[in-house]
Amino acid sequence: MRLSRYFLPTLKDTPSEAQIISHQLMLRAGLVRQEAAGIYAWLPLGLRVLRRIETIVREEQERAGAVELLMPTLQLADLWRESGRYDAYGPEMLRITDRHERELLYGPTNEEMITDIFRAYVKSYKALPLNLFHIQWKFRDERRPRFGVMRGREFLMKDAYSFDVDEASARKAYNRMFVAYLNTFARMGLKAVPMRADTGPIGGDLSHEFIVLADTGESAVFCDRKLVEMPAPGADVDWNDLQAIVDERISLYAATEEMHDTAVFESQTAEGDRLAARGIEVGHIFYFGTKYSVPMKANVQGADGKDAPVHMGSYGVGVSRLLGAIIEASHDDAGIIWPDAVAPFDVVVINLRTNDEAVCAACEDAVERLEGAGFDVLYDDTDERPGGKFATADLIGIPWQLTIGPKGVAEGVVELKRRATGEKVTLSLDAALERLAG
Amino acid sequence: MRLSRYFLPTLKDTPSEAQIISHQLMLRAGLVRQEAAGIYAWLPLGLRVLRRIETIVREEQERAGAVELLMPTLQLADLWRESGRYDAYGPEMLRITDRHERELLYGPTNEEMITDIFRAYVKSYKALPLNLFHIQWKFRDERRPRFGVMRGREFLMKDAYSFDVDEASARKAYNRMFVAYLNTFARMGLKAVPMRADTGPIGGDLSHEFIVLADTGESAVFCDRKLVEMPAPGADVDWNDLQAIVDERISLYAATEEMHDTAVFESQTAEGDRLAARGIEVGHIFYFGTKYSVPMKANVQGADGKDAPVHMGSYGVGVSRLLGAIIEASHDDAGIIWPDAVAPFDVVVINLRTNDEAVCAACEDAVERLEGAGFDVLYDDTDERPGGKFATADLIGIPWQLTIGPKGVAEGVVELKRRATGEKVTLSLDAALERLAG
Repeated sequence: MRLSRYFLPTLKDTPSEAQIISHQLMLRAGLVRQEAAGIYAWLPLGLRVLRRIETIVREEQERAGAVELLMPTLQLADLWRESGRYDAYGPEMLRITDRHERELLYGPTNEEMITDIFRAYVKSYKALPLNLFHIQWKFRDERRPRFGVMRGREFLMKDAYSFDVDEASARKAYNRMFVAYLNTFARMGLKAVPMRADTGPIGGDLSHEFIVLADTGESAVFCDRKLVEMPAPGADVDWNDLQAIVDERISLYAATEEMHDTAVFESQTAEGDRLAARGIEVGHIFYFGTKYSVPMKANVQGADGKDAPVHMGSYGVGVSRLLGAIIEASHDDAGIIWPDAVAPFDVVVINLRTNDEAVCAACEDAVERLEGAGFDVLYDDTDERPGGKFATADLIGIPWQLTIGPKGVAEGVVELKRRATGEKVTLSLDAALERLAG
Repeated sequence: MRLSRYFLPTLKDTPSEAQIISHQLMLRAGLVRQEAAGIYAWLPLGLRVLRRIETIVREEQERAGAVELLMPTLQLADLWRESGRYDAYGPEMLRITDRHERELLYGPTNEEMITDIFRAYVKSYKALPLNLFHIQWKFRDERRPRFGVMRGREFLMKDAYSFDVDEASARKAYNRMFVAYLNTFARMGLKAVPMRADTGPIGGDLSHEFIVLADTGESAVFCDRKLVEMPAPGADVDWNDLQAIVDERISLYAATEEMHDTAVFESQTAEGDRLAARGIEVGHIFYFGTKYSVPMKANVQGADGKDAPVHMGSYGVGVSRLLGAIIEASHDDAGIIWPDAVAPFDVVVINLRTNDEAVCAACEDAVERLEGAGFDVLYDDTDERPGGKFATADLIGIPWQLTIGPKGVAEGVVELKRRATGEKVTLSLDAALERLAG
């Protein structure tokens, strides 16, 4: 992609409305623009990151056996009256009346609708276990939206819903999502720690939050360092029996501020392993049994021929919020440092002299060869000065910067910089391609 | 994908609420489920088609130089007051009040918001031409939603917006979208004919609708048969000078009922070329100059140093509507016939005896080899009877059906059926793979 034909409106100054670093950097790097309080447009560079995050989330959901569908953003109020949540949800629910005076709402979550879909079609235990997920825009009318996409009102969420014939099977479904989440966040380069959590308005008796550690995180967290250092299980596991993997983790102390108990922390954790850190919630999973299936009459016939309410869980990932969380966890004074797996482009090719034919030819050759090797390339072909180009490249955080100027062209070399470390090497284009492929 | 682990709730009977064939088939084939009047959930099979259509639209937009971003679904009413459309738009606009009594609306289109984004960042002709598009859910509160996704209320639309320094350049942008649309619809296996159109509430003085021909289409259309038979231009064109390609087409008669003039039709068209058909609108493009940039003060500095309002066009494709249009254009009594490019799966492998180990092994081998060759495979491993499996395969319209039973296993052959023609051949799996790759 040629930068001169792209739309990347970076800002020189830090907008005054942004209080936290991820919000500041998302505005400065031209990732998003606020359209109303807590409502953002995703500019091209931000959208690319959002899509990469979404793709990782989707792939890991599918690997864990979940099937994707897509529910609409608007829902009937009557559906929420069935579960009893319409009145209980409070002012965070955006209530809407259409031209025929029918009551709608902008979905903040989808337990009711998915239960309605399930009960319409599934009648027998033979179709279970089933896990349905979607990745859709949601709306929560936060009283005080802030921190950019971290606490926006219109936000993109992945929510999955599991259906099982009994509690034992439902706990297996819960474990599958537990492991899928560990793998999902690890692929994004994040340290995400599962912590026992309150179930809040979703309900149920078993719940974990997944918290990304970041110095600038919103809440204090306390956990055993071994939990942070434990690698993700990966996809090569027995998806029908994950209890040992889950137990290994939940046996280690981990708690957010609200759930923290110093005495328990100290009794369960070796002194050198006690980590007090800050974190950001990026996922939340719930097992709530028959909380929705009973009032909504979502029954399935069991192997014994008798109808019984289906056992359910729900599993959320804050897809748009993850952009903020990743930036909070990965930035420096010069800007964003995207982990390779979610970067909007893999390489930025920086042309140091756009009025020099040989330099342009060398850049175009480099772009072509990089793209041919499967890399996503942003080509800075603008007439900005070198200093401005380097600053932009650092700000937008592309993992690799490949710089070509007249001196390099004369010597047959390019400069390759790794954004994360600042390490620079001068080498041939062939060698640079090899380095990138490695 | 194993059908036994998938979620494909097909219906035996035609739901009484569905009046047109595409709506009937979408419900029967388990593509969508109505959640409220004109509001649909996309079930897994329907979502797969939606994503394939979306991908083709995106690729052709990018090929024509448009850059993707994503605007939110909700917009501030004040933005629409600037253009004067807030009051003018009428009851089709879904108006919303949030908890702080701020007026929002669910965007039915995005001319105002994109103009606002443009004016915030672009100040000079040097950044032009620019074309920004997004693919996002929209809402139009139709008085009488009907025909399934063909006239829904919450619908997925691709809308692109071009920005140019003057009218001559803006017409080039218009031509690029004109050609992109021809290529887009052709890739989906559709005959889409451009027809001069009214500009309606979008405004402007130049507009074309793209109409898919289908016997069951919503409106009568009249055109020169040569226009229908003309192949799409393809991507290998000079994107900076498309006037000849556009002229070749717009010089041929084509009109919807509302614009039709029999006398002109007869004078401009040879008798044998006069086609009276029915069609479905799937795209609409507009050049409207400075209609929004003047009231919203979206000015750019020209090469002469003077500020002037930017010239704009907008370009819509009904992404979710296209599913209906494609089914209207491509079905038979047994069900849907998906064109290869948009099919939810490429092949369905039908296991005729799931309690026979040799048949299961042969099916699993076939699935593995097909997937290895890059095909998307649905594997019908359910215990349904053969007749039911064939009926489902025909109903959901996967382009190829590969059937394996005990007799074939004994003889080392499979049966391959082409859904579109009904042609069946018995051949080795190797030969079947070759046929599919061809």
